Amino acid sequence: MTESSAPHPLLRLLPRHDQRVKAGHPWAFSNEIAMTAAAKALPPGTPVRLEGDDGWHHGTWSFNPHSLIAARRLDRDPGARIDLDWARRRLNAALALRQRLYDTPYYRLVHAEADGLPGLVIDRYGDALALQANTAAMEALTPLLVQALRDLVSPRLIIGRNDAAVRTLEGLAENVAPLFGEETTARVEEGGLGFSVDLLGGQKTGWFYDQRENRDRVARLARGATVLDAFCHTGGFGLRCAAAGAARVTLLDRSAHALDLAMQTAAANNLAERVEAQKAEALEALEKMGAAGTRFDIVVADPPAFAKARKDQPQALRGYGKLARLAAGLVAPGGFLFIASCSHHVAPGDFADAVIWGLGRARRDAKLLFQGGAGPDHPVHPALPESAYLKGLLFQLA
Amino acid sequence: MTESSAPHPLLRLLPRHDQRVKAGHPWAFSNEIAMTAAAKALPPGTPVRLEGDDGWHHGTWSFNPHSLIAARRLDRDPGARIDLDWARRRLNAALALRQRLYDTPYYRLVHAEADGLPGLVIDRYGDALALQANTAAMEALTPLLVQALRDLVSPRLIIGRNDAAVRTLEGLAENVAPLFGEETTARVEEGGLGFSVDLLGGQKTGWFYDQRENRDRVARLARGATVLDAFCHTGGFGLRCAAAGAARVTLLDRSAHALDLAMQTAAANNLAERVEAQKAEALEALEKMGAAGTRFDIVVADPPAFAKARKDQPQALRGYGKLARLAAGLVAPGGFLFIASCSHHVAPGDFADAVIWGLGRARRDAKLLFQGGAGPDHPVHPALPESAYLKGLLFQLA
Repeated sequence: MTESSAPHPLLRLLPRHDQRVKAGHPWAFSNEIAMTAAAKALPPGTPVRLEGDDGWHHGTWSFNPHSLIAARRLDRDPGARIDLDWARRRLNAALALRQRLYDTPYYRLVHAEADGLPGLVIDRYGDALALQANTAAMEALTPLLVQALRDLVSPRLIIGRNDAAVRTLEGLAENVAPLFGEETTARVEEGGLGFSVDLLGGQKTGWFYDQRENRDRVARLARGATVLDAFCHTGGFGLRCAAAGAARVTLLDRSAHALDLAMQTAAANNLAERVEAQKAEALEALEKMGAAGTRFDIVVADPPAFAKARKDQPQALRGYGKLARLAAGLVAPGGFLFIASCSHHVAPGDFADAVIWGLGRARRDAKLLFQGGAGPDHPVHPALPESAYLKGLLFQLA
Repeated sequence: MTESSAPHPLLRLLPRHDQRVKAGHPWAFSNEIAMTAAAKALPPGTPVRLEGDDGWHHGTWSFNPHSLIAARRLDRDPGARIDLDWARRRLNAALALRQRLYDTPYYRLVHAEADGLPGLVIDRYGDALALQANTAAMEALTPLLVQALRDLVSPRLIIGRNDAAVRTLEGLAENVAPLFGEETTARVEEGGLGFSVDLLGGQKTGWFYDQRENRDRVARLARGATVLDAFCHTGGFGLRCAAAGAARVTLLDRSAHALDLAMQTAAANNLAERVEAQKAEALEALEKMGAAGTRFDIVVADPPAFAKARKDQPQALRGYGKLARLAAGLVAPGGFLFIASCSHHVAPGDFADAVIWGLGRARRDAKLLFQGGAGPDHPVHPALPESAYLKGLLFQLA
């Protein structure tokens, strides 16, 4: 997108299809907009003025004629210029919030709609940034965003992690490459540890800031404990427990590369002698450990999303139930189970029900100590409660 | 209750009324139990063996023929002796969990069903305990519980705060009096502050441990901020903010006595010159401040339950909507609103909807930073998700 001047092209909501938008929802669907030939010809990501058929001004929206979510609100002002200054203001507001929340520059800097930048995700690792543009508008705005980020936080490098599957819904191709700077390595500091982050090859943007407070929570229980971190990725939960004084930590993942990074972190932080890595399919490994009578004081089970789409939901819930059953079976009496789902398509209540079913199948009485989601650097737009995708449950088992 | 020996009297669930109990639910309702003449004659709180009509052993339950919740599970073992040793084991498990969770002896020590002591609440303030027995069984067990508590934590005093309205459902009278020891004063330490607690006259058991983590969360935002703490009770949120560096804190409550305690705490912690107390009905005061253009960087609105019974729900939701609208109107741009409901009869989703409606009416765009409940010293029984009564929402407002 080059800098756009108002007035933007005008699009109209269809009669009787403006209620949700009027109530403040930041999306309009393709069947709610008058799809004129002129509208269909607009390049994906074009800023438009959106009005009701009653002439009500809904502000400036980005428009993509090829997407089911055809329009996303950029600004309540219909005359807003979507330019470098606009990008800077949006990013600055996001930055000010994180600086209020955290003492160190490690956080999700931008979390899409809630930060007024629909479809844009930016994670900050000190002087390195990972940017994910999941809409045509943010893809088009990326050069301005890169400039604005350079102005605001003077990063050493900005990586484009544009490989999220949702990009296909906007007609965008996968593209992982540096947007600014040459290097591709980064570090994150958390709980007194320095973790290596694989900006190009790690899952998502390389690190899961969304679980930070849950890692804090589990680590506080870990002194003297034996810990299993299943689906550990680069070892966030397990290594935080090790640093908090766990007696022994077992990291379990299918990715040799992720385990390598985890063990590098362990070595760099003088934790390696209390940490071991097992490369295996987690569910199979849990089953084997259960059969062998292995027990841990703390079990963490934080798998990748089981439901990639709405239709996967029933199978995903069976999967979470099975995972809870297997994981609970490995928890020593009086020990703790932390289990999480990051599936957008699984609702919190359904996830909890599946897990509790699994605890029952494992014949374990449980106290639910905590249920919660991502940290405050992942704000939720009030009209999009479904964007609160992360669901974590912490139990003590009798 | 004197120490009871097995075998306990046998009660049977009615045919086809055992599904929930079989699935692990810790309650049986009066219409699910065969109410024989012998059953009806049992003194409230008597331990019984509960069996299905198929002979399935459901363990040892307490029975109250006069209560809608007629039976509550005490132990999965049908032969369990409900004696001093049993009370000690239950309390010891609860204590071990809290000692794992906290470094200092300030917490809810027992949270009813989730801790295997149905209807019993005990809050610990160092060497002072406040005990609330909300079932006939726990009322009858109180002498044993007092003995077990003395054995386990050697308290200076134990206050019986038996004035909860729910006691009437079990046919129990109100009774607030020391159960052990002579004094009635206590202190709670939190976030580096010492708060005075009114064990006899304060709301509930005198202090709201359930909001501790939410106070931590709000206080972390408070450096340099102006803060309004509406429905402040003894000033937990506001004084934590003051201690965390707030520029100015306004405490608002209808109770002169609660405000006196709060200002004593402020003075004792050298915070008084940045704290002021306003005695007023909070909703009226919020409305006046809004009309006068008063604004705060942080507004906390943590009222007593608006819904005391299920039938109050619609009115309560309107109340929460109005409270959100008035409170949001007082938040400066970029500032924060924390709003909570402790109404058992208002579901989390309904509360959030009411609050978001209120934000819309106040014409404030919002980022939802956090939604959550009580801390882990208030565990939830997995079969009683409705016992997760506390719902807190933290927003940043544009």
